[in-house]
Amino acid sequence: MYVDVGNALASAANPGVPEDALERLDDRVADAHDRIAAGMDADEFGYAALNLPETADADAIEAAVEPFADSETLLTVGIGGSALGAATLTEAVGGDIDAHVLDNVDPEHVEDLLADVDLSETAVHVVSRSGTTAETLANFLVVREAMAEAGVDWTDRTFVTTGPEGNLRDLADEHDLPALDVPEGVPGRFSALSTVALPAAALAGADVHEILAGGRDGMDALAGSLFDCPAYAYGATAYALDVRGAGVNAMMPYAEGLETFAEWFAQLWAESLGKDGLGQTPARALGATDQHSQLQLYRAGPRDKLVTLVRPRERADRGIPDSDLDGLDYLAGNTLGGLLDAEFEATEASLAESGVPSVRVEIPRLDERALGRLLFDFEAACVLAGELYGVETFTQPAVEWGKDAARGLLRGDEALPEKTELGVGDANDST
Amino acid sequence: MYVDVGNALASAANPGVPEDALERLDDRVADAHDRIAAGMDADEFGYAALNLPETADADAIEAAVEPFADSETLLTVGIGGSALGAATLTEAVGGDIDAHVLDNVDPEHVEDLLADVDLSETAVHVVSRSGTTAETLANFLVVREAMAEAGVDWTDRTFVTTGPEGNLRDLADEHDLPALDVPEGVPGRFSALSTVALPAAALAGADVHEILAGGRDGMDALAGSLFDCPAYAYGATAYALDVRGAGVNAMMPYAEGLETFAEWFAQLWAESLGKDGLGQTPARALGATDQHSQLQLYRAGPRDKLVTLVRPRERADRGIPDSDLDGLDYLAGNTLGGLLDAEFEATEASLAESGVPSVRVEIPRLDERALGRLLFDFEAACVLAGELYGVETFTQPAVEWGKDAARGLLRGDEALPEKTELGVGDANDST
Repeated sequence: MYVDVGNALASAANPGVPEDALERLDDRVADAHDRIAAGMDADEFGYAALNLPETADADAIEAAVEPFADSETLLTVGIGGSALGAATLTEAVGGDIDAHVLDNVDPEHVEDLLADVDLSETAVHVVSRSGTTAETLANFLVVREAMAEAGVDWTDRTFVTTGPEGNLRDLADEHDLPALDVPEGVPGRFSALSTVALPAAALAGADVHEILAGGRDGMDALAGSLFDCPAYAYGATAYALDVRGAGVNAMMPYAEGLETFAEWFAQLWAESLGKDGLGQTPARALGATDQHSQLQLYRAGPRDKLVTLVRPRERADRGIPDSDLDGLDYLAGNTLGGLLDAEFEATEASLAESGVPSVRVEIPRLDERALGRLLFDFEAACVLAGELYGVETFTQPAVEWGKDAARGLLRGDEALPEKTELGVGDANDST
Repeated sequence: MYVDVGNALASAANPGVPEDALERLDDRVADAHDRIAAGMDADEFGYAALNLPETADADAIEAAVEPFADSETLLTVGIGGSALGAATLTEAVGGDIDAHVLDNVDPEHVEDLLADVDLSETAVHVVSRSGTTAETLANFLVVREAMAEAGVDWTDRTFVTTGPEGNLRDLADEHDLPALDVPEGVPGRFSALSTVALPAAALAGADVHEILAGGRDGMDALAGSLFDCPAYAYGATAYALDVRGAGVNAMMPYAEGLETFAEWFAQLWAESLGKDGLGQTPARALGATDQHSQLQLYRAGPRDKLVTLVRPRERADRGIPDSDLDGLDYLAGNTLGGLLDAEFEATEASLAESGVPSVRVEIPRLDERALGRLLFDFEAACVLAGELYGVETFTQPAVEWGKDAARGLLRGDEALPEKTELGVGDANDST
């Protein structure tokens, strides 16, 4: 992975980071790196995620999915970190299977999806560390019922990734389902390079060994200076920009295959760093599409944004056919990829022209190895940023209140605090 | 549409809007409404969009798509406002056709999509006001070539929506393609209720008359006070929160069918209001999924957010099967929809509990009429907000620089300004 932070320097942007401030920050990066390396060595909670490229067992994952290798469809039943890694991998480097994620409990969507697939040709991967996640278990129960209704033996079509105890573990034991262990000490949003997401990649035809090799490239590239380590260059620059006013980080990959990567990044960044009143707000975008949607705001709106531009350097391409259409002479002899690259560079330059900071991230191409590296490096960037902010990177305490409240509502034994109301329109309109 | 801004008041949130400040703001809302009404009366540029529910011709749209009624697949070729309306409508109330949008020039994605569909059963709708949009025309040329390669007569499978002159108009004339006129005086992002997006809805089996009827409900509900008009209640509250520090507007519908609506909203809000250093930054989210991704940040991160919660009051539901799974007693006898509603209310309460402002938007159900109303009301909210900010709501001048630069690059006759570089990693790595 290559990171260019030139357009985030104070000489190029406002807010921007003075180059000498980056040099001073590098002392803190060195300390943070020591802390991270020590955490990795001790397999401490959270830091253990950065060891996954070495600790994940690709062979065991391939063996677990082997019985489902001929499936037409894969349903990953999980939510948050138990779903986004799988969705990111299958979108970017999958393709051999029709992969879906059931990560919401919208009844109409669930019904539509179940009606659309041939359940007898569907592999179901249920992912929940605790085995008690409400959305995941509710969806699993519905899928199981739908299979029974369709005359499909769910125990032939299901495998799980879960912790050492709980409902899913018990079910797996009882019905002899293939069961993978969630990695110990790894929060869900850091679990893409593990038994949580790699099974989906394997079923989609991706080379899991290569994904992990890419992660190891990232491990090897960790170093005690942001000027020597692309991941830290990214994390430190994002942090330094945030404290100078760039509270929004717009993640804008120029590749359709990385659209879900931006969503994965949004969870990683928001849930890890959004604490104690701190944290950069991720905004998802997609190049070139969102040039026609968000770029106006990025260039001319409030000066509170870092735009992260990501692209593969090479891709399979397709020529744009010649035509005699008016005003399109400049497309002649070009390719779709050439047009996309021109848009990338023009957008980067247009942000610089208006003084909006951007960072350029490049990977060689969108393949397994580069993707493994990309995911690892953004995780390392996030861990570094967490050290610089001084927050508890690996927890998510603020979501518990709502989970408890939802359970209380469903039990009917707890009411919510009274709501402040100021309604406009017909509160009872049902037409 | 029903809007409840109670949780955005200063008595409930920080930042929050004091109720008397909202009352003072209402004088400006009354003036803005006069301005909007006058603009609508005169069919002025931009304001004309709010007349579309009356000026759009549903019969003409239905007639134009009739030759394609038996298609398996619809490809909408457009970008930005020429794509997002169609995607929003077909996702929310379509379903009778396999609808895709070609709104990016990623060659791998375009190839995959073209390989996946039966082009002889595909309707192609090309949308560009000028007929010169680079991405749209490049994709159209590729689709046309792919049809020729597949032995399909593209002139049998293609219809256009475009302006009175230009390439697409000429092509339509030459090959006798069905051609619809883009509405006059309507910027792309305000064109969902027109010939730009409604053809896709019609082909997807939605009732276009009902969508427009919903828009007319919105027109009828416009009134000179935010306390009487849900659309203005939303727009005024979002504005009032932004100027008090809520620079991010997280749009979080609780319905998978509204996931693209959040994207449509993001364009509407960003491109209309992101000017002169002003404008709220839209962040796209989805309930309940993003409770496990973004809620930690919303509750515990910087106090710079408004969370907009949207839900249909009724939906087709599915019971959660009984089970003896541990710790899930509270799911017994409940439904997926009941779980989703409990999560909605718990999230709203959890935001209030931590003093984060939210607005609740409710529609009766996710059908054509309610969707037409929802889109119209958010457009009206946006126009009102633009009046309150005092920006040029209907233009997007900041995107032109990049378009010119990309064309220059492709022509090879213009170079970009020199880039400030600070690269970390291997700039030439291609492995």
